[in-house]
Amino acid sequence: MISKLFDPQSVALVGASTKQGSVGYVILENLVTRFKGVVYPVNPKYDEVELWGRRIKFYKSILEIDAPIDAVVIATPAPTVPKILEEAGLKGVPVAIVVSSGFAEAGNVELENWTKAVAKQYGIRVLGPNCIGVYNAYTNFDTIFLPADRAGRPPPGPLALISQSGAVAAAIMDWAARRKIGLGLMVNYGNKIDITEVELLEAFAADDRIKVITLYIEGFKYPGEASRFLESVRKIVPKKPVVVYKAGRGRAAQRAVKSHTAAMAGTYEMYHGLFQQAGVIEASSVREMFDMAKALAYQPIPRGKRVLVVTDSGGMGIQAVDALEALGLEVPEVPESIANELKRELLPFAAVSNPIDVTGSATDEHYKIVLDTLLPTAFFDMALVVTLMQVPGLTKNLAEYIINSKKYGKPLVVVNFGGSELVQKFEDILEDNGIPVYPTPERAAKALWALYKYAEVKRKI
Amino acid sequence: MISKLFDPQSVALVGASTKQGSVGYVILENLVTRFKGVVYPVNPKYDEVELWGRRIKFYKSILEIDAPIDAVVIATPAPTVPKILEEAGLKGVPVAIVVSSGFAEAGNVELENWTKAVAKQYGIRVLGPNCIGVYNAYTNFDTIFLPADRAGRPPPGPLALISQSGAVAAAIMDWAARRKIGLGLMVNYGNKIDITEVELLEAFAADDRIKVITLYIEGFKYPGEASRFLESVRKIVPKKPVVVYKAGRGRAAQRAVKSHTAAMAGTYEMYHGLFQQAGVIEASSVREMFDMAKALAYQPIPRGKRVLVVTDSGGMGIQAVDALEALGLEVPEVPESIANELKRELLPFAAVSNPIDVTGSATDEHYKIVLDTLLPTAFFDMALVVTLMQVPGLTKNLAEYIINSKKYGKPLVVVNFGGSELVQKFEDILEDNGIPVYPTPERAAKALWALYKYAEVKRKI
Repeated sequence: MISKLFDPQSVALVGASTKQGSVGYVILENLVTRFKGVVYPVNPKYDEVELWGRRIKFYKSILEIDAPIDAVVIATPAPTVPKILEEAGLKGVPVAIVVSSGFAEAGNVELENWTKAVAKQYGIRVLGPNCIGVYNAYTNFDTIFLPADRAGRPPPGPLALISQSGAVAAAIMDWAARRKIGLGLMVNYGNKIDITEVELLEAFAADDRIKVITLYIEGFKYPGEASRFLESVRKIVPKKPVVVYKAGRGRAAQRAVKSHTAAMAGTYEMYHGLFQQAGVIEASSVREMFDMAKALAYQPIPRGKRVLVVTDSGGMGIQAVDALEALGLEVPEVPESIANELKRELLPFAAVSNPIDVTGSATDEHYKIVLDTLLPTAFFDMALVVTLMQVPGLTKNLAEYIINSKKYGKPLVVVNFGGSELVQKFEDILEDNGIPVYPTPERAAKALWALYKYAEVKRKI
Repeated sequence: MISKLFDPQSVALVGASTKQGSVGYVILENLVTRFKGVVYPVNPKYDEVELWGRRIKFYKSILEIDAPIDAVVIATPAPTVPKILEEAGLKGVPVAIVVSSGFAEAGNVELENWTKAVAKQYGIRVLGPNCIGVYNAYTNFDTIFLPADRAGRPPPGPLALISQSGAVAAAIMDWAARRKIGLGLMVNYGNKIDITEVELLEAFAADDRIKVITLYIEGFKYPGEASRFLESVRKIVPKKPVVVYKAGRGRAAQRAVKSHTAAMAGTYEMYHGLFQQAGVIEASSVREMFDMAKALAYQPIPRGKRVLVVTDSGGMGIQAVDALEALGLEVPEVPESIANELKRELLPFAAVSNPIDVTGSATDEHYKIVLDTLLPTAFFDMALVVTLMQVPGLTKNLAEYIINSKKYGKPLVVVNFGGSELVQKFEDILEDNGIPVYPTPERAAKALWALYKYAEVKRKI
């Protein structure tokens, strides 16, 4: 049962350590001080230790633990791993997370094969080895051996990440923590001797806490994986969007992929074709993957590709239109009768076509008029709202008007740029209420494109 | 003399006001409390006023001021502007900044023509009208009528911005202030009845404080401007890089440009061709423009396009190679003899081809070995260094090693991603020492591309 991989209630940590900064110490601290489950530290060197203001009992081996165990985390030297897996198997533990490195990636192919064989014999499912494992923001089940002061832990939320690279995953977590992005579940699978991307995708697909699955991948490893991926993902995407960033596209990049994860990079065109067929939404960078995921998690699906652009800066409006058109979205003109109506209610120099430029002299109410007049009509499917808060007439109330427009059931994203406190606060209010904010028109346009693309995918599959 | 536009020693502010939040009040506060020059507030309504803990003397008109004046800032209702310009002309003021709006942009074409005629008659050079004017971070000459709490003021530095849009300029300033980006001079020229982009470009080209000129433009306005631009910029770029972002590319965008600045958008291809001929470096967004400008201001020019990539994350290395190759830069393999040498000094699992992956177990010294071994050789022209600080072995000392590599005279940029305090501090040290840091491999690659592109431009022109 790989569901125990993300939501164990009891965990044994083999290789738990009292040596500050060591892998076994950081994971022990994560589990003892934050995990909402039971922890059994295993290390024959210790008996009972006082740490973090608690008395912590250590076990000599997994077999000594007198209770059922949902998962075992192994952080001991590579050569000891098969024996520990054997004990876990005897104990009946369903799943093991092996963070230890020193297997095939270090040339020890035989040790890796032996580990695989032991796992198979006992029917124990293995994540890794050579991985950072699992982070669950809901229960704080956290096998990440990088201390929180250099790799932040994001808050719970509807995004999930599957990453082939441990360092990339840690950097994403650190960034998501800082930006308060709700990355509820994260998994890094390392050498992948057993549990694969496809199974992890299926686990997240079945998890109600997760609304969008993101996948960072460098390449598949085994024959047949591509077709299993296609088959599986085609079943997932009608229920949940899957956003993928495939690294390693050019020639030199493929050389690097080969040395990094021993993945078969294949040609990028092969992957691109596969993603298209599978109905996956493809990002061209890690950041773009999360820009899209944020919109997919919180915004409805549009009925078409016609975008309303409202802006207090003509210049930013133009940039937005550039970006939208380059992505194949449409920015249709406002029908003349409605344009005339707007003309009467907005400032004399406002542009009432599309983009609607309420001008730098606008007030919050002008945005409200535009949104309330145009969003309910059949002429627009979604809206990109530019709010340069540097102009004098705008206040935090504008956020409320934008949030209120969610009632029209159409996707809304906001472009906001700058650094002052007002700008920050305004952004926080919007994001806390499910309106994604982006610092550039290009990124906001790409997010709307992802929503449109997902609508298309759902229609087709 | 348009140099007085940026560096006046004495300024008259006509329309100075004591009404909090008004245009005339914000500019008065800027000039009285921060400007390192003499200010003469003009408003017949006041005599002497106590404000900001100072006694401030007001003048009835410019003609009443008994001292020479380098520049006049006009912030009165549009219809009064011609008369004030006349007085400034009589007084012999060389340059006027007209922030007042209500001219051609509001349909008052006749008033705009009249204003133009008066300026011409008295030989007074005019910036605007309908502009936010000038910001000089060196002297705090600052006509921006947006209060600093919503539009931050960036610190002095080698970047200059010429912007056709006032709101875009204010948003850029606010962002640059927050990021501590040295934007030394900024100008927005509004309706452009007199002083043009080309003259502003020439003024910045002649200014020793400025190393890189950035230009945000929606389109030229008058016949003949494109050829003047070409002629002028071709003379500037051998001395200083000019980075341009032209907004308004597609069809709907051009409709918006027309209504926003009444500029002739022309086809984007026309502008693109012009920029190529002029030797301008073209950005595809405001943010990219500053990413490039930062590198161009602080890094040397490369001799070729071969990039060394060093990383502690195989995944990030791959992304970097993807981005570099997509831009036409090269990531050549390390010659075998040197690779073997590296093999002995780095960790056993390190990848010593290119990208060099020092792995997540790396220490600061591993980066030092790579940089000191490869940067002095003839095999590489520049370096992209990925430093995911989430891994356990890296410390702030790494910044010192990277800064030290400046001695090899080759461009260096860093990719750093995350949000923890260590990450922030590490970035600050690098940027304070002239090493540009970017949050994604794509942005760092584009910065190196800009350096290479500028090297090409210098060779050709």
